[in-house]
Amino acid sequence: MKSLKNFKTGDKLKIDSEDKGYTGILMPRSELADEKFIVIKMDSGYNIGIEREQIKNITLIKSEIKKEEFKLKKAVPDENKPKISILATGGTIASRIDYITGGVHSAFSADELISAVPELEEIANVSGRQIFNKFSENINPGDWIEIAREIYAQIKKGADGIVVAHGTDTMGYSAAALSFMLNTPVPVVITGAQRSSDRGSSDAAVNLIDAATVAAKQIFGGVFVVMHGESSDSFSLIHPGTKVKKLHSSRRDAFKTVNALPVGKVENGRVVYFKNSNSYKFFSGQKNKELKLDAKLEKKVALIKYFPGMNEDIIKNLIDRNYRGIVIEGTGLGHVNENLIDILRTAIDAKIPVFMTSQTMHGRVNMRVYATGRKLLNIGVISCEDMLSETAFVKLMWVLGHTRNHEKVREMMLTNYAGEISGKTNID
Amino acid sequence: MKSLKNFKTGDKLKIDSEDKGYTGILMPRSELADEKFIVIKMDSGYNIGIEREQIKNITLIKSEIKKEEFKLKKAVPDENKPKISILATGGTIASRIDYITGGVHSAFSADELISAVPELEEIANVSGRQIFNKFSENINPGDWIEIAREIYAQIKKGADGIVVAHGTDTMGYSAAALSFMLNTPVPVVITGAQRSSDRGSSDAAVNLIDAATVAAKQIFGGVFVVMHGESSDSFSLIHPGTKVKKLHSSRRDAFKTVNALPVGKVENGRVVYFKNSNSYKFFSGQKNKELKLDAKLEKKVALIKYFPGMNEDIIKNLIDRNYRGIVIEGTGLGHVNENLIDILRTAIDAKIPVFMTSQTMHGRVNMRVYATGRKLLNIGVISCEDMLSETAFVKLMWVLGHTRNHEKVREMMLTNYAGEISGKTNID
Repeated sequence: MKSLKNFKTGDKLKIDSEDKGYTGILMPRSELADEKFIVIKMDSGYNIGIEREQIKNITLIKSEIKKEEFKLKKAVPDENKPKISILATGGTIASRIDYITGGVHSAFSADELISAVPELEEIANVSGRQIFNKFSENINPGDWIEIAREIYAQIKKGADGIVVAHGTDTMGYSAAALSFMLNTPVPVVITGAQRSSDRGSSDAAVNLIDAATVAAKQIFGGVFVVMHGESSDSFSLIHPGTKVKKLHSSRRDAFKTVNALPVGKVENGRVVYFKNSNSYKFFSGQKNKELKLDAKLEKKVALIKYFPGMNEDIIKNLIDRNYRGIVIEGTGLGHVNENLIDILRTAIDAKIPVFMTSQTMHGRVNMRVYATGRKLLNIGVISCEDMLSETAFVKLMWVLGHTRNHEKVREMMLTNYAGEISGKTNID
Repeated sequence: MKSLKNFKTGDKLKIDSEDKGYTGILMPRSELADEKFIVIKMDSGYNIGIEREQIKNITLIKSEIKKEEFKLKKAVPDENKPKISILATGGTIASRIDYITGGVHSAFSADELISAVPELEEIANVSGRQIFNKFSENINPGDWIEIAREIYAQIKKGADGIVVAHGTDTMGYSAAALSFMLNTPVPVVITGAQRSSDRGSSDAAVNLIDAATVAAKQIFGGVFVVMHGESSDSFSLIHPGTKVKKLHSSRRDAFKTVNALPVGKVENGRVVYFKNSNSYKFFSGQKNKELKLDAKLEKKVALIKYFPGMNEDIIKNLIDRNYRGIVIEGTGLGHVNENLIDILRTAIDAKIPVFMTSQTMHGRVNMRVYATGRKLLNIGVISCEDMLSETAFVKLMWVLGHTRNHEKVREMMLTNYAGEISGKTNID
């Protein structure tokens, strides 16, 4: 294991490990990772941890690279422009890396925002506020409520649109949660970045500008995700908050609308709607939406992905621990092994509603086609139609926050509140 | 609830329910579903269950439709053609519905096979055998072993290729399991049908013919899935068994190769390879593969999909119940909420290896980029690279069937046995 004692944070180093060489700027030790890893920021802007045990040689390329000077512009309000609030929750988009401290400073005053992304000033009068600063994998259902409350307060105070900067990992879950918790006459647009904002290829600025464009210009409300539509910066897509999923671990165009079409796109600063898409019709057709916050959640809900050989003990554990609802991500049209039927009946008898989605992701659950599905229907398992598993899970939390009456839970789960259920076309 | 006493199985009925009308042939009562549902076979060939409570009216359109005569052809062996074994495990492809009994009769003698799908005789000398008859949602890890043993026996007896007819729901899991359990110099081709073989639009015959074509003509071994490449009958794709996933609940082209390209396609009876694809290079490059069966599995393995708010009790349950391994389908580059780190460390301390895949499905896990990932690496969670969650889960069962030594488990999990790990290109 190589010693780092001759090098300091901010030094540009060449590190040769057993498999390959890395060049980058030495980042400060983080609390937990320092024992095994050295973290450097590569020219690509990516931070990477290199296992210390694997390091064979370290060469100094350039001593401590000094912090860039960052001059704040002063925001000048323009009465003719709409007012948008940009709310930060953390994640890659909300950070610019300080080369010296390696710390993540979030720029969320209006001055900081327009200094970092000057285009924002052209679009709207922006105001900024940091709600909290979390990687999105650490966001919990309680955080969704906090975000919803802040959005509600900002709209109440007169915002014409909201942008929420959010980590991408669980953005889809949060978008679904906000979709159910908020009834909003103005657009609430969630965005993020797959690449750090200090990286050459970062999507942070474009996503923020395009999200702000939708927040400022869109005349109908609802909760949306705006992210890159393809790897290049050519356009962003406007995804319905209940139908969007992160479908790549690293690509800039990782977000896709599933089981529907996007509402539209943002290209060259213009919003272009996909007027034939059901999502567009759904959101643009909701007239006179009154602002309402309904942020009740039951947190004892589980999302369980079925796998071959799954033992009933996994369901039994949920019953024993007083879970209030279960969403099962089954196979195909909505199936699990028949040998789980007894334990699922036990759950339903214990007043724990069980809902079915499909791990095929695309397509609709239909438990009436095959015998296994009919057996599941027969014991009371309820189909989630073409809802995403993640959306069904979040929705069940929200529904159970309102009622535990079985019939009412079923009825609410099958009501299309926020574009989460597409109209049936035919059996396919 | 309408009475059925004036109608008999085989009658063509028009049933008006509260939401819509259905026309089809009355199927016999199945044991469990009859209390709540009437099952009819519609003109489309789909069976559908209609809730009896919802039925307002039933009209007889035509009395009992008589069973079609089915004449068996006699298979004539041709010494110049390769020998392939078609093994049935159940599922939609293996069935033709008897209109009178509604029963599912599997046609798996050579005579029955070539009578049902005469094109097979042009391709090869076929022999058939039914291993068992299960909907694939009911297939368990023990069944994979049974299928692997039968394939091994057939190749040992001289088969030049194998076709396995299998339900589509868990076909991806079975394909992965067979990929690890079998080392085979001849092609093992799994196929199925998304639509019943008595349905006009069925994909059963084309899939079986194309699978038989690959089994008969392909000069290199390995385990593959051959299914429709698009909705029409234009071509089928040859997917690597470890990289294939059912990605639509009902479409004929539901199966996709994920994180790789297919090996090739079958078009107009010809096999066309995608020679630039890594999958093609991997399988065609494996020379002189010796036939070997290695069907050991540890069944106490769980696949857990992370969700926001996931409580540590879900992991604790697996520890308490002596699970031997856990695959977590995390978010993004391979993350879970930091508050699960303690319980995961407890699992690892208890000699339960924990592996990480991503619910983004596409892309590679890389836990070195963000602090959460590095913390997970630090406690010993192991990245599954770009393996599908389902494949990683099946592989862990197989690996733990061989060793429980932690370092050996890690090493085997990260060895590319069957095309399940794609070569790294770069950090993206």
